[in-house]
This record gives sequence, structure tokens and C-alpha cells, in this order.
Amino acid sequence: MPFARYDVLGIGNAIVDVIARADEDFLLKQGMHKGRMELIDERRAEAIYDAMGPAVEVSGGSAANTIVGLSSLGARAAFVGKVKDDILGRAFGHDIRSAGVAFDTPPASAGPSTGRCYVLVTPDGERTMNTYLGAAQDLHPDDIDAQTIGASAIIYLEGYLWDPKHAKDAFLKAAKIAHDADRKVALTLSDAFCVDRWRDEFLELMRSRTVDLIFANEAELRSLYQTSDFDAAVKALRADIEVAVVTRSEKGCIVINPEDIEVVPAFPVERVVDTTGAGDLFAAGFLSGVARGADDRTCGRLGAMAAAEVIRHLGARPETSLKDLARENGLVD
Amino acid sequence: MPFARYDVLGIGNAIVDVIARADEDFLLKQGMHKGRMELIDERRAEAIYDAMGPAVEVSGGSAANTIVGLSSLGARAAFVGKVKDDILGRAFGHDIRSAGVAFDTPPASAGPSTGRCYVLVTPDGERTMNTYLGAAQDLHPDDIDAQTIGASAIIYLEGYLWDPKHAKDAFLKAAKIAHDADRKVALTLSDAFCVDRWRDEFLELMRSRTVDLIFANEAELRSLYQTSDFDAAVKALRADIEVAVVTRSEKGCIVINPEDIEVVPAFPVERVVDTTGAGDLFAAGFLSGVARGADDRTCGRLGAMAAAEVIRHLGARPETSLKDLARENGLVD
Repeated sequence: MPFARYDVLGIGNAIVDVIARADEDFLLKQGMHKGRMELIDERRAEAIYDAMGPAVEVSGGSAANTIVGLSSLGARAAFVGKVKDDILGRAFGHDIRSAGVAFDTPPASAGPSTGRCYVLVTPDGERTMNTYLGAAQDLHPDDIDAQTIGASAIIYLEGYLWDPKHAKDAFLKAAKIAHDADRKVALTLSDAFCVDRWRDEFLELMRSRTVDLIFANEAELRSLYQTSDFDAAVKALRADIEVAVVTRSEKGCIVINPEDIEVVPAFPVERVVDTTGAGDLFAAGFLSGVARGADDRTCGRLGAMAAAEVIRHLGARPETSLKDLARENGLVD
Repeated sequence: MPFARYDVLGIGNAIVDVIARADEDFLLKQGMHKGRMELIDERRAEAIYDAMGPAVEVSGGSAANTIVGLSSLGARAAFVGKVKDDILGRAFGHDIRSAGVAFDTPPASAGPSTGRCYVLVTPDGERTMNTYLGAAQDLHPDDIDAQTIGASAIIYLEGYLWDPKHAKDAFLKAAKIAHDADRKVALTLSDAFCVDRWRDEFLELMRSRTVDLIFANEAELRSLYQTSDFDAAVKALRADIEVAVVTRSEKGCIVINPEDIEVVPAFPVERVVDTTGAGDLFAAGFLSGVARGADDRTCGRLGAMAAAEVIRHLGARPETSLKDLARENGLVD
């Protein structure tokens, strides 16, 4: 493979999280389904904001969180995603760049405002998400720069990209450029309901080898194959893709490759404060291992470690240096 | 005293905190003085933002934090302060109203954007603040509604109000209305350097009985009387005002009234994460006691309890119900 400027380049919806604590009763009254990510329009966004408690604004977005995690792990990372040139868009740009990530997608000067995700965190640490895509809708294939994509060892894409109008085309363009340059393409299935919306297209991405590696949690896997039989789903998955990582919360993860299946335990966490970003940071840890050629087990441990860090506090971005944490845990030299 | 609609009405600079972790080296390079609040212009604000790490946006403002704390303690609370009608201004309004506080000051539709405080939190939990006052500059005497002020048992003012152009006049107007309506006026000295800027005026406020109760920490007290002799400063303070509360970080506080001095210990805190808001929340706890006629010791304990809650996490607003916490600690029925 030619020299890569970036270890991982992520493409995703650029979103600012608006996080508030809420009780189960609030979710019920608002007709929200606990643990789910729901797409909402601007009017609903305003109604939720009016009803919810005092909030904190933190940059988010699934793939963006992963990329920031990768940078914290010492990887060279880049991100492509669309914000508007407004206060939240500038905050998003500041936060991702100051985390060491290359982020050059020009912000939209007109159209909807920067995308927001209203995250309600219940006392058990579970998060329920309501996403107003906003400017993320305006990510176009034109935003995909062939040279940058070709210079990245791994392209990481989120399933959520299937929701905005043109992002799917940006996704496919990037995947083609990457493969033409002999690079790897990874995909996270994002959310069980996202899989439900785009099941056939996701399966086609895997079967056509448009993606080489996928990340899924148990719910997403069940949704993908419409089965509650975990073993059957794993078997089906194995036939459909070269490498897959299935995360299982406190049960850790399994890494599936053509030769075998590696079972990796989770990291212990004293108190779960907010599960937002657990999957995103798992992917960060795992990909940081892949980028430096680590074995499946080490990749899985790095993923578990990064996920454990982010669920200990509010927000989906790491608060400590994951590189230092990986060193303390003997996962990197 | 006539019936009061609000237990406490606060007047202060309406500010959104932009909080990031930083090391001592960063403070040095930026020429910042650890622990201090510095006033900055828009250009400096942008330079600091460009240089600082990934941030979290949380509503702040000293008196506003106190008022939110009071609401969390079950007091009926109101706030007067100026934001602009922009994204951060709307977030400020949302956060304070959804905390149960009455906030009716009309936002500015033109002029500078909503005020921001760039808060750098070092690993020891100490915070260093850089405030761009922005729209807070536009708080005018016209924003003081005589009926609302007259209907509040205690008016709480921050020394920082002396910095914006017209806020001082708003302060004096409110104090006069309050006293004419037989209400109490409380003032926090805010910051040792704020005291340094306005020493003579603050002393005059006390000696003319424009304020009835003041909150000061040790550094502010030393600055007020330009002495390093704590006992001498306390003696001077006693001659200048009816009631004063001096906070001493982990040494607790002393409550000074004409009859005696009550020494109240601090609340134990396992790990200090971010001291932002410690003084603000102390005032909230103390005033909640005053509002319900508690003795000095109970007021001091309530202050210590509220301060202990807020330094356990990032941001200057309480994350748990202070009323529940006060109940658990046997400080309210």
C-alpha cells in the first residue's frame, strides 16, 4: 500500500449534541423510545428543546466522535462532514480541529442550521437521541476530495449517512476512490432502526464488498438479519463480509474473520454516567489497533478501553488522553 | 414585610461558559493568571478560542449560577441579565428557565453577541476565566422592573456588574427599589481583581448601607482592605456591614453578624473536578437558608453543601437536585 497521510478518515453527519438529564417519565410523555435514535424536523426539535431541562452543548456525531477518539489514541485522523457557518457550526469545527483532526469540509453559508442531537440521559446512564440533521443534509459528493480519500489508509463511514439526501452518494464515491487506491473501507451500522430503514442497501454494501469491515451491536445485527437468534445472525454475517466486529455492551465483543472468532471481554466500569458514544469510541479503539497492525484481540481490547472511558462521563468525546490510557493498560508501547 | 413573589432575584452578567481542560503550560503561554477572571475583548476571545482545546458550552454567569442553585434548592427565584437573541443567548434563556427560574429580560436584537467566558480547567480543578462581556454590556436601568424587584424578598447582585457600562446604574436602581419596599440587598464581591477595580465604590456601597449582606472569599477580603492580615480585615468588615459571609475554600466559612462570628466547616469532597461556581453555589445555599429564616450555621452548611456539589463535576450549575441533597443532609425538613 502506498504511504498514507491519514490512518483513518471518517465521513459522517456533523452534529452538536444538546445533552440533558431526564427521567423515564419525560421520555414517556414525549413519546420517545428509550435508547433509540429518532430523526426529527425543526419544529419537533424546538418542541423537545422547550420541554427538556437545562442542557450542555458538546460536539458529537457518530463518526466524528470516532475520529476524535482515534486522534486521542495518537492516530492521524481526518473528518468530512457538513455544518453551517453559524455558532454551533464554528464550535463543531473548533472542537474537532483542536482535538488534532484535519477537518476541511467547507461550511454551508445558507440553508438549514448546524445539525443537533437532543440527547436525554436517564438515571441509568442510557441515552435517547433525537436528531435534527440540519446542515448535515447538505453533504454532497462534491465534498469528497479524491486526493484526501486516496491518502487515507482506512475510510470509516456511518450508516446514518444513508439518511440525508446526498450523503449516500458521497459515501459511495469515497468508497470507490478508497478501493481504487487500495485502501480499506469500514462501516458502522449505527442504529437498529437505521438498519431497519436501509437493510437491503446495507446488505448489498457488504455483499458487493463495497465495505471490508463492519461494526454492529447485537440489536443492529438482529435487525440486519431479522432474527433473534444471535448465532444464526453471526453465521449469516460471516458469509456476507470479510471482517466484522459485534459489540455486546458489558459482555464485550466478538471479532469475526474468515479464520476464526475472537471473544474479547469488556472493560470494567464503576458507574455508567452516560452511554452516549460507547459504540463510537469502541470503533475508535478498534481502528487504532487495525491502523498499527495489531491482532484482533488487542484491537478489541483497545475498543473496549476507549468505550469504557467515554461512558464514565457526560458526552461522547474522550475527556482524557486515550493514548496514555492505552499505555497504562499495556495495549500500546 | 409584604408577601414576596420571589425569595431571591439575582441581577448579573448573563454569560455562557466555554469550558476546556488545559495544563499549566497553556496558561503560561497565553499569559493568563491562574485562578483569576480577566476581562477580554472580542479579538482576544477569538485568539483564546483558537488556541484552546475541545470545549463544552454550558450556561454560566456568577449571579445566574447562584439563582439556578436557589431554584434547585426549592426557592422561588428570578434573574435579570442581558443576552443577545442568538444561539447562545437562546441556550442561556432555555437553561435558566428550564431550571425553574423566572427570566424576562428582553434579549438585545442588535449589538454584540451573547457574553462568553472561556474557562480553562487545570488538572488540579482550578479554573482560570476570560470573560468577553458581549451583550451583557447592554443591561440598562430600563431592564429593572420596579414591580418585580419590589416583589422579591432578597435582591442578589454581583460585583462584576460594575464592569459593564450601564449595569452599575441598573444595580443602584434595583437596590433603591428594594430598600424602599423593605427588602434586603445582598452583594458578592465576585473576584479579587474586580474588588481591585472598584474598591472605593464597593466600600461606599457597604458603608452607605446600600447593601445589607456581602459574600467575599479571603482573596477578595484582602483586596478590599488591602491587607494580608485576615483578622484585621474581618474586624474592618464588621464595622462596615451588618452581615458578611467569608468563604475560605476547604476551611469552610465564617458568618459575621453584629452579635457574633459563626465558624462553619466545609463539606468533604472526594475529588475536585472543577471549582467553577463554588462561590456562586455557596451563595445559593446560604441565601436559601436566609430565605426560610434558618440560623447562620444552617445557612453556612447549606452553602457548603451546594458548593461541594458543583465542584465535583465540570460546569457551574448543579447536576443533582440540591433540595434532595439538603434533605439527605438533614438541613431542611
